[in-house]
Amino acid sequence: MLEVCLLGTGGMMPLPGRCLTSLMTRLNGSSLLIDCGEGTQVSIREKGWSVHDIDIICFTHYHGDHIGGLPGLLLSMGNADRTKPVVLIGPKGLIRVVEALRIIAPELPFALEFMEISGKEEVIRKNGYVIHAFRVSHNVTCYGYTLLVERTGRFDVERAKKNQIEMKYWNRLQKGETIELPDRTLTSSMVLGPKRKGIKVTYCTDTRPIITIEEQAKEADLFICEGMYGEKEKQQKAVEYKHMTFQEAAYLAKNANVQQLWLTHYSPSLVCPEQYMEEVRQIFPNAKAGKDRKSILLEFPKEE
Amino acid sequence: MLEVCLLGTGGMMPLPGRCLTSLMTRLNGSSLLIDCGEGTQVSIREKGWSVHDIDIICFTHYHGDHIGGLPGLLLSMGNADRTKPVVLIGPKGLIRVVEALRIIAPELPFALEFMEISGKEEVIRKNGYVIHAFRVSHNVTCYGYTLLVERTGRFDVERAKKNQIEMKYWNRLQKGETIELPDRTLTSSMVLGPKRKGIKVTYCTDTRPIITIEEQAKEADLFICEGMYGEKEKQQKAVEYKHMTFQEAAYLAKNANVQQLWLTHYSPSLVCPEQYMEEVRQIFPNAKAGKDRKSILLEFPKEE
Repeated sequence: MLEVCLLGTGGMMPLPGRCLTSLMTRLNGSSLLIDCGEGTQVSIREKGWSVHDIDIICFTHYHGDHIGGLPGLLLSMGNADRTKPVVLIGPKGLIRVVEALRIIAPELPFALEFMEISGKEEVIRKNGYVIHAFRVSHNVTCYGYTLLVERTGRFDVERAKKNQIEMKYWNRLQKGETIELPDRTLTSSMVLGPKRKGIKVTYCTDTRPIITIEEQAKEADLFICEGMYGEKEKQQKAVEYKHMTFQEAAYLAKNANVQQLWLTHYSPSLVCPEQYMEEVRQIFPNAKAGKDRKSILLEFPKEE
Repeated sequence: MLEVCLLGTGGMMPLPGRCLTSLMTRLNGSSLLIDCGEGTQVSIREKGWSVHDIDIICFTHYHGDHIGGLPGLLLSMGNADRTKPVVLIGPKGLIRVVEALRIIAPELPFALEFMEISGKEEVIRKNGYVIHAFRVSHNVTCYGYTLLVERTGRFDVERAKKNQIEMKYWNRLQKGETIELPDRTLTSSMVLGPKRKGIKVTYCTDTRPIITIEEQAKEADLFICEGMYGEKEKQQKAVEYKHMTFQEAAYLAKNANVQQLWLTHYSPSLVCPEQYMEEVRQIFPNAKAGKDRKSILLEFPKEE
């Protein structure tokens, strides 16, 4: 069960009633954050979630509206008596940028662990999250993120019997344990059927629409995508500034065949995103205009 | 006429509904800001004031809650097409701290002019503001600020005549001009009576109560002072962390004989500042618990 909260929906600058775009998820007590603009910590509190349990912070890129709130967040996590390390993930330059910003947060009661990514796609497994970072197309190096919560196969009695596994080991193997016996090694794959569909969320901001995004978002339960401009007339501006229109995001969602699309990262000039949604839904029906703290609980699909 | 807005009242961290402590003033189209924590630019917008005309930014010190919002503010001022230089004033370290934070705001369409202060008291005249920076007592070097709007003397016909000033020069001299004649130099002091009372605002946060503050705030129209703790029982904590209780701030106001006191920079643990105000008003009657965007218009005193 993955809890997802879109903490803000603004691009460029925070506005009254519109925080900067950022995503927070919670999975088995471990929270993950994507981007942390000025004011992100306020939105977390507004949602009623805690800054204490943020174990992983991913950055798409280092424009101010995506990282300006980091020093304040780290200070607040310190004030909340966090002592466990925090893993920071982002494109090259991560250490340089974060260490510069830490001029105002030099002393923290927890360590920072840096993971700089540079490939076209990188996969990081941490705290139950399988994080796919994938390079997108902005005017600086920028990454999107797919978060997967994997689901093991169903327990398969026939398989266990066929592999001659004693019943006393079944429960431990089902939970993923590997058991060393004097004569052989027992693994969970000996008692489990094929992997089942897990949970998938794909997130991308500050990019032109590219085929990689469609591939990454394929069949996602939730696709959160930037929509800098609602007005079709701003197509040229979107190209120039390497952003997207709502319509472009909708076509990505349609081609990736996702369950639902949330738009975010609105231009400050875009006062009422809702007014463009009818047109967007003609392209992709299950599209929503993201709002600050729009949330969803994603569960493993029910089985017959 | 000086417009004053207390943009926020929080200490340590921004909270929903409580921005970090910061002051903004407007005088003849020129805005001045004291401190700029995370979210300050949002509060400016909430107030309906513009970031474009901020000509001067003073910093008390460089703890994150007093400067974390600077890069975002500068970026937004750039987006608002500001091109005039901005003067930054603060204790030593100003250039080092601001340049580090500018890793996320490297390109701005206006220049930054730095004025590092190091004396016990320094006076800076700029855009009609007379700014007195005075060192206070925190766990790092920290300054308070007194803002004066001076008022010249009344035009004195007798004096002008006595100084044999021709009438055609009266208006220019009254406006402060100095006029070079072939045989002598005419100054405004030749036609004006003694200086009249101007407008005075004294602001200090992050300090123990010290005599300097009383001296600085003497007869101020408005004294804005930190009150980290409302509870008397937190006196020891105030001493330890180099902050003040409401009561201590009230005694400063009383001894300085100010017109009114606004408290600010509340601890996040202080949920309802108002509940301690009755006791505070027994010490200094015209004390108010500051609220986000509490504002006042200060005018030169009316004369008989």
